[in-house]
Amino acid sequence: MEEAVVKRIGISNLVSKVMSAEEAAAFIQNGAIVGMSGFTRAGDAKVVPLALAERAKNEKLKIDVYTGASLGPEVDQILAQAGGIRKRGPYQGDSVIRNLVNTGEVLYVDAHLSHNAELVRQGIIGPIDFAIIEATAITSEGYLVPTTSVGNSPIFVEHAKNIIVELNLAHSDSLVGVHDIYVPQMQGDRKPIPILSPTDRIGDIGIKFDSDKIKAIVISNEQDAPSLIVEPDDETQEMANHLLDFLRSEIKAGRLTNKLAPLQSGVGSVANAVLEGFKDSEFEDLVIFSEVLQDAVFNLIDAGKVSFASCTSITISEELQKKVYGNIKNYSDKIILRPQEISNHPEVIRRLGLIAINAALEADIYGNVNSTHVGGTKMMNGIGGSGDFTRNSRLSIFVTKSYAKGGKLSSIVPMVAHHDHTEHDVHVIVTEQGVADLRGLAPKERVPLIIENCVHPDFKQQLWDYYNEAVALTGNAQTPHNLEKALSWHVNAAKTGTMKL
Amino acid sequence: MEEAVVKRIGISNLVSKVMSAEEAAAFIQNGAIVGMSGFTRAGDAKVVPLALAERAKNEKLKIDVYTGASLGPEVDQILAQAGGIRKRGPYQGDSVIRNLVNTGEVLYVDAHLSHNAELVRQGIIGPIDFAIIEATAITSEGYLVPTTSVGNSPIFVEHAKNIIVELNLAHSDSLVGVHDIYVPQMQGDRKPIPILSPTDRIGDIGIKFDSDKIKAIVISNEQDAPSLIVEPDDETQEMANHLLDFLRSEIKAGRLTNKLAPLQSGVGSVANAVLEGFKDSEFEDLVIFSEVLQDAVFNLIDAGKVSFASCTSITISEELQKKVYGNIKNYSDKIILRPQEISNHPEVIRRLGLIAINAALEADIYGNVNSTHVGGTKMMNGIGGSGDFTRNSRLSIFVTKSYAKGGKLSSIVPMVAHHDHTEHDVHVIVTEQGVADLRGLAPKERVPLIIENCVHPDFKQQLWDYYNEAVALTGNAQTPHNLEKALSWHVNAAKTGTMKL
Repeated sequence: MEEAVVKRIGISNLVSKVMSAEEAAAFIQNGAIVGMSGFTRAGDAKVVPLALAERAKNEKLKIDVYTGASLGPEVDQILAQAGGIRKRGPYQGDSVIRNLVNTGEVLYVDAHLSHNAELVRQGIIGPIDFAIIEATAITSEGYLVPTTSVGNSPIFVEHAKNIIVELNLAHSDSLVGVHDIYVPQMQGDRKPIPILSPTDRIGDIGIKFDSDKIKAIVISNEQDAPSLIVEPDDETQEMANHLLDFLRSEIKAGRLTNKLAPLQSGVGSVANAVLEGFKDSEFEDLVIFSEVLQDAVFNLIDAGKVSFASCTSITISEELQKKVYGNIKNYSDKIILRPQEISNHPEVIRRLGLIAINAALEADIYGNVNSTHVGGTKMMNGIGGSGDFTRNSRLSIFVTKSYAKGGKLSSIVPMVAHHDHTEHDVHVIVTEQGVADLRGLAPKERVPLIIENCVHPDFKQQLWDYYNEAVALTGNAQTPHNLEKALSWHVNAAKTGTMKL
Repeated sequence: MEEAVVKRIGISNLVSKVMSAEEAAAFIQNGAIVGMSGFTRAGDAKVVPLALAERAKNEKLKIDVYTGASLGPEVDQILAQAGGIRKRGPYQGDSVIRNLVNTGEVLYVDAHLSHNAELVRQGIIGPIDFAIIEATAITSEGYLVPTTSVGNSPIFVEHAKNIIVELNLAHSDSLVGVHDIYVPQMQGDRKPIPILSPTDRIGDIGIKFDSDKIKAIVISNEQDAPSLIVEPDDETQEMANHLLDFLRSEIKAGRLTNKLAPLQSGVGSVANAVLEGFKDSEFEDLVIFSEVLQDAVFNLIDAGKVSFASCTSITISEELQKKVYGNIKNYSDKIILRPQEISNHPEVIRRLGLIAINAALEADIYGNVNSTHVGGTKMMNGIGGSGDFTRNSRLSIFVTKSYAKGGKLSSIVPMVAHHDHTEHDVHVIVTEQGVADLRGLAPKERVPLIIENCVHPDFKQQLWDYYNEAVALTGNAQTPHNLEKALSWHVNAAKTGTMKL
């Protein structure tokens, strides 16, 4: 066996468990419930899933796959396409599995990312037959050290009957020490989570495990699938400018200082682009407490704007992968990778008072937000952590361009066609048109702010017409709606391709 | 001055602030922002609001009224009817103010009850001109001791420019010592809330205050408006039986013991009736960690079923008021009254792992819940604490009768007309028909459980017809809906009085 492999397996009697991906995959039975590492394409197992996909092409093999969040192509494309997935949770973000979800071939449980660990702990998800976990190393102290994400791996490792480790040599063992693994006890028996600042380390450098459960160690040498972030454009820059101006007004009001508050930023191009906007701002010594670190965070670290970043996953472009993972020691004292149960924990989020910035698919005139369902029926990605952060942050901000499909669709509608964040939870909406600060306002006070500040000019009058008719129809009720027309914009879009009347 | 009064004012130089309700009310200007004590008709100021109502009848006087939750008739009927309220938050439950809310005469901000204190602390609600707080006593140590609720009084007292105390002699000073006042620091500067068990006391016996801010002390001698709970009936008994059976199955699955977990129960007759169902059950040594203690909790304490109850408000019938407040010493070691920011805090709720039982107005086939808006537009009461508890509990249960209006309306609909709790948050739905356990299920897995177990027989086929058409229309998408018909049941009900096709 290669010395590089042996060096990464600190417990000598586990060296005999090294085997091929095919041999490891052979342990997994049809119908198995499998917990996998991986969060937004980072730190996912890569070679065992490919071996499972080969089997699924040739025999009846359908498994339930629970993860941290979305995975790379090995699972959410290849295994899914091979018919190997019966059920998937709690998040996906790939067009292949998305299509299977929206044709009923894969069952998908779209869940708050802080909730899954509790469901595993209670046995609602499970019993978990196998955990398949990508690792940087197994240390002699008995820790399984993750790679570029932590996600739900600790809870899977704790509750799975069997564990398969993918030892990924592509990552420097300098990653050891970056993670901070803390797993709460059962509800009712637990203590406060002792994080008082995003920089606090409260746990272990890796995941404790029962070595008797290790069925296989498979060696791999693959980088994560790079993130698919689209570059910022003029309109995302406009959105960033509006957001920065809003934050400046919060400083003026005495509610924030120039250091702001710990920032959370959602997954995807828009949230990333908005975060990039901080680079040329006057804000400084910023701290991130988020789920996923995308390119913008590392660019802000390099620019000296961000001094520390806590997350559960690092999902970056190919160019940044080389830069960051090639020089991980330059970053390792500025980063902590935590379990998603901790990065997304309401207790910690509310205590720290985050500024949460998440992307909306669409919002409505009362401030409800749809994060998940295109046209109210087809799943896009999932709610992810946006609910965990939005409900508990100091400032809960949603960003979206005011229009989609080249202007045929408005992102602000009379009533969202699926509700992920209710009127009670959304503080601020930002589009390239402007900002609506909804805090402390009654529904009817929100309407003019949203329409006048955030809606594309092409749809303003149409929304006023809807609202005014609804006010008349309901006698100016708490939340005026004309239920016959509330979803008509979506119905029109499905029939004619446009929401324009 | 009466000795009884002087005895209750432990700081001698405040005795000179005693004055009539009319004199105190005269301080308050038109346009003032006022924070009042009171939570679900308990512990609210009673005589100063009546004096304000008198003024509002004779002069231009409109104020913004923020409270813990709903108040008794002095504010939510008489002051409201006199035109004295411009804006109201964060909860109401009275037909008089409800009607003014639904005709646009009063602006109403329906909010999560754990959120208000943060908004006051940040200055989003405010600046608060006056806090009007009902108290049992002012102690010589400088505490303002509330009466039968704590609600948002601590944050109002801290942030108000001026304070008016209503010293209510109707309550025994044995109430002193029942409260536990703990107020978190600003987000970002705070420590964990050190509650590890519902019985933990972590704060002071009363609210600290700046005595220079006391503008008036008004003496009153009024009991709270009694709760308007309707007695349990056969169907609420059926719901209770289904719930108890579900909890038994959780014990069998090893997820609970005979002591269950700390129970939260929502406000209103249905939740109270369901809780009454525990009286003749085998469960024992039960502990309550809730917002409001209604009659059922005291009946369960008397029956030896409940050993301890933590809350922010005691709202009970006239008969129980006599029994409990006449013998408060019999109960005072079994009860804690906390600020609503603590009783409803996500940190504490998730740590303790509550079983949350809240009432729904309606639910839909995917598990979304409407708690607030009749027909999607008219406010009933408000979301209250249901969102705080539902999102963070070990078990989030919603109870509703399967039908309303004598069977003309189904409480389970294709799509709820207002979303307060999304499909991501609702674990279990209970009607008099049965139980749907939705945990860990994809939307399409939830549908047959909800329709077959919870829907009234009169509406089952109609819901299946809707769903099957939606599946065909969307090609079996993640969440099949026919948006042209999704709200048609509500439209029909508004036009014809029935949801039956």
